[in-house]
Amino acid sequence: MDIATLFGIIVGFALVLGAIFLGGSISIFVNIPGLMIVIGGTFAATCVTFPLEEVLQAFGGGARAFGIKKVKPQEVVSTMVRIAEISRREGLVALEKIKTENALLKKACQLIADNADPMLIRDTVMIEIATMKRRHNVSIAVFKRLGMYAPAFGMIGTLIGLVQMLSQLDDPKSIGPAMAVAILTTFYGALMANLLFIPIAGKLKARTLQEEVQLNIIFEGAKSILENNNPRLVYEKLSSFISPKERRSGGRQ
Amino acid sequence: MDIATLFGIIVGFALVLGAIFLGGSISIFVNIPGLMIVIGGTFAATCVTFPLEEVLQAFGGGARAFGIKKVKPQEVVSTMVRIAEISRREGLVALEKIKTENALLKKACQLIADNADPMLIRDTVMIEIATMKRRHNVSIAVFKRLGMYAPAFGMIGTLIGLVQMLSQLDDPKSIGPAMAVAILTTFYGALMANLLFIPIAGKLKARTLQEEVQLNIIFEGAKSILENNNPRLVYEKLSSFISPKERRSGGRQ
Amino acid sequence: MDIATLFGIIVGFALVLGAIFLGGSISIFVNIPGLMIVIGGTFAATCVTFPLEEVLQAFGGGARAFGIKKVKPQEVVSTMVRIAEISRREGLVALEKIKTENALLKKACQLIADNADPMLIRDTVMIEIATMKRRHNVSIAVFKRLGMYAPAFGMIGTLIGLVQMLSQLDDPKSIGPAMAVAILTTFYGALMANLLFIPIAGKLKARTLQEEVQLNIIFEGAKSILENNNPRLVYEKLSSFISPKERRSGGRQ
Amino acid sequence: MDIATLFGIIVGFALVLGAIFLGGSISIFVNIPGLMIVIGGTFAATCVTFPLEEVLQAFGGGARAFGIKKVKPQEVVSTMVRIAEISRREGLVALEKIKTENALLKKACQLIADNADPMLIRDTVMIEIATMKRRHNVSIAVFKRLGMYAPAFGMIGTLIGLVQMLSQLDDPKSIGPAMAVAILTTFYGALMANLLFIPIAGKLKARTLQEEVQLNIIFEGAKSILENNNPRLVYEKLSSFISPKERRSGGRQ
Amino acid sequence: MDIATLFGIIVGFALVLGAIFLGGSISIFVNIPGLMIVIGGTFAATCVTFPLEEVLQAFGGGARAFGIKKVKPQEVVSTMVRIAEISRREGLVALEKIKTENALLKKACQLIADNADPMLIRDTVMIEIATMKRRHNVSIAVFKRLGMYAPAFGMIGTLIGLVQMLSQLDDPKSIGPAMAVAILTTFYGALMANLLFIPIAGKLKARTLQEEVQLNIIFEGAKSILENNNPRLVYEKLSSFISPKERRSGGRQ
Repeated sequence: MDIATLFGIIVGFALVLGAIFLGGSISIFVNIPGLMIVIGGTFAATCVTFPLEEVLQAFGGGARAFGIKKVKPQEVVSTMVRIAEISRREGLVALEKIKTENALLKKACQLIADNADPMLIRDTVMIEIATMKRRHNVSIAVFKRLGMYAPAFGMIGTLIGLVQMLSQLDDPKSIGPAMAVAILTTFYGALMANLLFIPIAGKLKARTLQEEVQLNIIFEGAKSILENNNPRLVYEKLSSFISPKERRSGGRQ
Repeated sequence: MDIATLFGIIVGFALVLGAIFLGGSISIFVNIPGLMIVIGGTFAATCVTFPLEEVLQAFGGGARAFGIKKVKPQEVVSTMVRIAEISRREGLVALEKIKTENALLKKACQLIADNADPMLIRDTVMIEIATMKRRHNVSIAVFKRLGMYAPAFGMIGTLIGLVQMLSQLDDPKSIGPAMAVAILTTFYGALMANLLFIPIAGKLKARTLQEEVQLNIIFEGAKSILENNNPRLVYEKLSSFISPKERRSGGRQ
Repeated sequence: MDIATLFGIIVGFALVLGAIFLGGSISIFVNIPGLMIVIGGTFAATCVTFPLEEVLQAFGGGARAFGIKKVKPQEVVSTMVRIAEISRREGLVALEKIKTENALLKKACQLIADNADPMLIRDTVMIEIATMKRRHNVSIAVFKRLGMYAPAFGMIGTLIGLVQMLSQLDDPKSIGPAMAVAILTTFYGALMANLLFIPIAGKLKARTLQEEVQLNIIFEGAKSILENNNPRLVYEKLSSFISPKERRSGGRQ
Repeated sequence: MDIATLFGIIVGFALVLGAIFLGGSISIFVNIPGLMIVIGGTFAATCVTFPLEEVLQAFGGGARAFGIKKVKPQEVVSTMVRIAEISRREGLVALEKIKTENALLKKACQLIADNADPMLIRDTVMIEIATMKRRHNVSIAVFKRLGMYAPAFGMIGTLIGLVQMLSQLDDPKSIGPAMAVAILTTFYGALMANLLFIPIAGKLKARTLQEEVQLNIIFEGAKSILENNNPRLVYEKLSSFISPKERRSGGRQ
Repeated sequence: MDIATLFGIIVGFALVLGAIFLGGSISIFVNIPGLMIVIGGTFAATCVTFPLEEVLQAFGGGARAFGIKKVKPQEVVSTMVRIAEISRREGLVALEKIKTENALLKKACQLIADNADPMLIRDTVMIEIATMKRRHNVSIAVFKRLGMYAPAFGMIGTLIGLVQMLSQLDDPKSIGPAMAVAILTTFYGALMANLLFIPIAGKLKARTLQEEVQLNIIFEGAKSILENNNPRLVYEKLSSFISPKERRSGGRQ
């Protein structure tokens, strides 16, 4: 579990609910038709914007924002240095035996062991990285769009409420409550966008950036192994991906 | 039919109509002059912004957002691997016989069969991709602009209504309904932008990205065939364009 | 005449005037001091933003948005293929005799005929394209800025009107008309920006993109001629700049 | 003096003052605490945003927006052609004697005369250009930020005024004037941003673009001289930096 | 201490407090639930947006905006020239003895002394620079986001207050004070964003740009030393990183 994601959402909603309770009844903040317009409209517009499989993929990706599967860059660097040592001792063919969960690393090792053309290996790894980024960017784009449509449909709901209220201005006493209801959809849209959609898009982007670093370490490591650098220089180069603080604590091989 | 596009638009409008019905008569939401200003103004401004043939082309392209013509990347990869096998068995000249609906693939095969200079093939394919993107980007730009002009002319309509209402503030009773009418154009503009124009621009962009992947697979495949890689390595490289999940299910040749 | 530009502006203003007439007198929408603040302020701020010669050049360029001087990409492709044929039959020196109105094409032909270094030809053509884009981008930037300053000075005018109205709230009856006048400048600014400045900036950009394609065809054609490709391959390559539909209709040489 | 800058600012403020006079007393538009919040807050936030020396440098740069020191691209081209002729007649060493006020040109001549490695000359000139752009971009960024903070602090001032007014709603008669005062800071912020800060940022950017062209002419000219092109071809290439109209009037050497 | 950062924040808040005092009691500007919603909501949303360690790292980085640790580019240039002289007199191996606090410079010297492949040195230094930029960009992004969430939660707080006020419109006298309280959260959000979060993000960016220049000087210096340029030419090249004014005052070696 990524505690920060869940913690932030719970604390955020708790604060809003607290402020509502302090000011009186919570029932005046519930308006089912308003909720339907904002939530329904937002998702309808998102379905028009993206192919269905991308919307579903994004929600799968959004769930990832709550999960934890972080690989520290130091570990990837260590792995690559270890592979460099193996390839030096036992030859490039030995890389075929490397066992790893990382699909890119596996593919790179296999291509190196196959003695493939360095240019081909380079192209393959770069396509792999671009494909990963494109897939993640789609999920990020879906949540960003949700974060744009939610306030827009909040405003549309408020406009509907205002038109209805203004066209039957008979009883001055009814203006206040009717306007309160009209404003509610704007409130729903702003809250959903700023506490759910936009932040989740941000978390997915942070994840993508971290994963990108990891893939770049593998890419640069594979390049060095192919050019037959010695493991110490491989470490020197790859350790540049780690922040200085963590570098020191990891020590030098 | 791309179900998501039509489904999203219908559900979105149904929700809005539902909220209007719940609040009373639907007739107070109909204002013909207001509709004319928003729709007419939006299209007039769009005609000034783009050459006429680009506007018409965009509407043709917009219709595409409702159609389905998706080619799965896996299929393009399989095609390229098959072509690689043919070219290996029967020589590059055999590519002239390849039959395909994809214009770019056809052109690439012909140029390879003609034994054209690799640099020329590369340039030709890259120009082809750039031309495709430029053509699609124009359609996307038209819908994005429609999505910007609609709320702007909605606001212009509201300003006209407000000025008219305020300049004849004789009867306090008429303020409400007059203001309701004035607000209507803002409502029209926001609804059209957020449920039609901006989402359709998004769908067209998603289509373009998918088509781009397809063209890139052809580009990278042709490059590999020219450099005479074996079909297995062509598959290794091109499969990097496919997401890991679909890769496994497709199996390895 | 580019009909779309003029047509759009006339239809747009006609719709707005129609809505005004429907609602009553047109005189309440005329406010000379308000017009002066919006138009004057917008142009004053533009003069501070750009050097005077660039503002004047932009207005010259803006007039271009109404004119028509479109060269179809197919024609440029045909011209380049014809030149390739001439250069093949009669040698590169024959290019000196080529007659054309296009300044870039003329320069390129001359440099090729002079037997200049390919690197120099490349640099010269690329500088020429960059200079064209820079010049056009200045005009586009001027109209974009006009489209940003107009609503800003519209708002400034409204703020002035509101302050004056609020500071002398003696007669409640005068509030309405005074506020109507205050709102007028916002209306002027929004209308000018969305029906004139932003759309014209868009049309100029569309023109620049079309001209860029044309220059790129010349650039790629000249490159191919220098590398002594045969005219058929020159056509194969350059036809990639044309959309598939127009390609077929043009036939193959 | 760059007349346009001063002219625009004076005309803009004159129009605003005119509109104020037409509507009554100018004294209702003066509010010292409001001015202090907008001006003080804007500059305070800018001091937090940029290192002090960059803020001071930007104001020096801002003054440049009023000065004139324009070098026409034609003149730079002529100079480079002249230098090409000298270097041809008298050898590259003769460039040491070239006298020029332009620091980059001086440095380039000296490096060429020193017979430095072409790669080093290229690197040096490109660093010089990047340093110039970075320095100017800082000044542009400062004015852009001023143009963003001014309306923000205008709104903050208005919020303070509104809270104060609303919390003591005893006398309905005082509402109008109190609200007028509250709105004033929004007016100050909008006026300063749109007539001073944003336009000056624009002028500085225009200057930077012009200077960049000049440096690029020197860069491309030096490259050509090193590659020992003849002066006529140097002119052919560099004249591409000039707009066609000015090219003709300058004639061909 | 970076005086400008602290000075700006103190002066900014002093001006705002001054304006509040002038208008009456400061107590009407204090609303604890409002403060909790704005501060709490902003931080909650930020915790959802970024991994926890990045938020903490950003606050560490934010503190840096108050500290001073500026290294003048002239000094870095002098250091690199000195190193060039040493490497010339005593050979590249002598660089191992260079003592410096700059981690990148140390690494570069060590790699040069180790006689590593120039390509490897280049890659290593570039990765190091990219890692530094990525780390700083995360901190900048956190503060930018804080600056976006603060006004958003300010608006959310105001919407809550408005709904509560409007739904119990019994006593007209209570409208004013209730609305004043509702507006307060918008005021909190705008003030925090424009006087703290956005400016600190700006200062961190300015720092990053300065540090980038420094790393680029080291990068270009190391390149020159490897290519065995003489110290005078190293100075000629690196001095291009310094603004002309400081260059002169520093003199020529």
